Amino acid sequence: MSTELLAPFDRVRALRFSGDALELLDQRVLPREQVWLTMHTSDQVAAAITALVVRGAPAIGIAAAYGLVLAAREVSAYAPADRSAAFAVQAARLRAARPTAVNLMWAIDRVLFSVGADPDPAAVLTLAQRIEAEDLAANYRMAMTGAAYIEPGHGVLTHCNTGSLATAGLGTALGVIRAAYAQGRVNAVYAGETRPWLQGARLTVWELLEDGIPAQLIADGAGAWLLSLKRAHWLIVGADRICANGDTANKIGTLSLAVAARHFGARVMVVAPTSTVDLATPDGSHIHIEERDPRELTEYAGTRTAAPGVNAWNPVFDVTPGNLIDVIVTERGAIEHPTTERMRAALS
Amino acid sequence: MSTELLAPFDRVRALRFSGDALELLDQRVLPREQVWLTMHTSDQVAAAITALVVRGAPAIGIAAAYGLVLAAREVSAYAPADRSAAFAVQAARLRAARPTAVNLMWAIDRVLFSVGADPDPAAVLTLAQRIEAEDLAANYRMAMTGAAYIEPGHGVLTHCNTGSLATAGLGTALGVIRAAYAQGRVNAVYAGETRPWLQGARLTVWELLEDGIPAQLIADGAGAWLLSLKRAHWLIVGADRICANGDTANKIGTLSLAVAARHFGARVMVVAPTSTVDLATPDGSHIHIEERDPRELTEYAGTRTAAPGVNAWNPVFDVTPGNLIDVIVTERGAIEHPTTERMRAALS
Repeated sequence: MSTELLAPFDRVRALRFSGDALELLDQRVLPREQVWLTMHTSDQVAAAITALVVRGAPAIGIAAAYGLVLAAREVSAYAPADRSAAFAVQAARLRAARPTAVNLMWAIDRVLFSVGADPDPAAVLTLAQRIEAEDLAANYRMAMTGAAYIEPGHGVLTHCNTGSLATAGLGTALGVIRAAYAQGRVNAVYAGETRPWLQGARLTVWELLEDGIPAQLIADGAGAWLLSLKRAHWLIVGADRICANGDTANKIGTLSLAVAARHFGARVMVVAPTSTVDLATPDGSHIHIEERDPRELTEYAGTRTAAPGVNAWNPVFDVTPGNLIDVIVTERGAIEHPTTERMRAALS
Repeated sequence: MSTELLAPFDRVRALRFSGDALELLDQRVLPREQVWLTMHTSDQVAAAITALVVRGAPAIGIAAAYGLVLAAREVSAYAPADRSAAFAVQAARLRAARPTAVNLMWAIDRVLFSVGADPDPAAVLTLAQRIEAEDLAANYRMAMTGAAYIEPGHGVLTHCNTGSLATAGLGTALGVIRAAYAQGRVNAVYAGETRPWLQGARLTVWELLEDGIPAQLIADGAGAWLLSLKRAHWLIVGADRICANGDTANKIGTLSLAVAARHFGARVMVVAPTSTVDLATPDGSHIHIEERDPRELTEYAGTRTAAPGVNAWNPVFDVTPGNLIDVIVTERGAIEHPTTERMRAALS
């Protein structure tokens, strides 16, 4: 199947760089409103990443790369001796915008390594555009690799949003689901709503609806029941960070679904570009897990749901051990039953 | 520990029968508002059960028993020859109000069996009050039995609402947690928010706050991560129906947590009065699982969260196999590692 046949299933975009600004589709108000916000400075980009205007590990990395384009332009007004330090400060602010997503670090490191101490804005722009284009190309490759695993007639379950909104386009896990659907392999697509931020309810099923792919929303807690009934045979998810041994940090709730999949005989696929793989982190115990404001759980869309005074524990990610993952798909191919040895052999 | 020592941890009530009407605390608007609704007819009670004004298997049974008091009064105005058929119609409407909760059937059967064809309202009232008082007494017994299993210093996780709001008072699973807290055994209480209806976020943590028991709300998907980190050593839940082999229908999400508990070495306790046990149903495959309006997932408090046109699959319960349950606590004692033989030996 060629890229052209997949294009009708890839209509949505999360960001666009136009002239002298980065425009971001505000994912906080989707699907109710479709609002594009314009970022003129790298600090605005960092703030937008922290505020979840843009989310999804690959999209965050791309947004940060364009943020560095804006930073390079800002510091070009400085005296040559000051540019390097000022650029480093902007890069550090972007790096601190979200702690767990390794793509953010990867994109910033890649730019810093390439452009040197005195960044040329045009060179940074070229590099950011390359990072975006490479991500899109990687997604198309991963989609084909992953879809080949889906037996015709099987159902799939996904979690969070890993689609065009989370990447340069098509998506990682959702790219695999799009390709499998386009090939007629998938008979049912289920998406967990993904509390607390409802990426599944607000973003994933909206994206799929835009592309004409029928999907059913479920409560996160319903995933195990769905898998036990054999309505879904694959759990297909993205990743925010994959360790050297295959341990995978992803949206809170992924571990729960992976454990249930293993228990009920379904299989687990993690789909992520190699920029998400962090071979320097040996296993999941070394990952810092971001915790966010408890109000994400005690409020809903600005309305208080829990009683005043209630406490909450709100980790945003969990770590699924590599031994619960049947296959990791990257743009460089598939790694079945990941171990440190297999990961290094495939990716080093 | 005596009942008196537990009383400070049992302040909330879900229903009260006063004079000639059943008053129900409207659980749809808790904790934002505390509104008591007054039911003058058994049809109003049935509608309130369907609409989730009152929920929780034991509380539904008690409400239905008081509904039959109202029905007996209504039909007493009829000619004697018509009373029996009219009473049967009212009972059938109450029975149909929720399909999964076996306590509803149990309470209605108990009344119908006792009062005969021409129901005396005073006799039905005495029986309804006895059903309520027995439930409260059963909860105090279960609380002591279950709490003895909790090792001091351990954390507990619960799901849905099984407290005073779901019963005549104190609660089933939440009664065990209250007793374990009162005895100083519990170092942390976690409650899943319980999508889609948010019984955990709206009701459970509110009840615990009213009683001064510190609790932390978590996303349903965070349960497996919590258990893997050994923050909770017990999953303690109620039941809507327990089959002869120990298979347990409970709020959607329970199966997910039970599978995770087994995987990570935590233990699973189901707490329910024997009125929830249905020895006539051999195993979970025979349970009809209620599915509710998909809008419970696509909307929140009247605000649409998912895009228009999105489909959802909204089963309200799931079935946890008896072999994932470490102990079932009823008012008649504990059944460890339930099997059909052990269940029948303990309860027949």
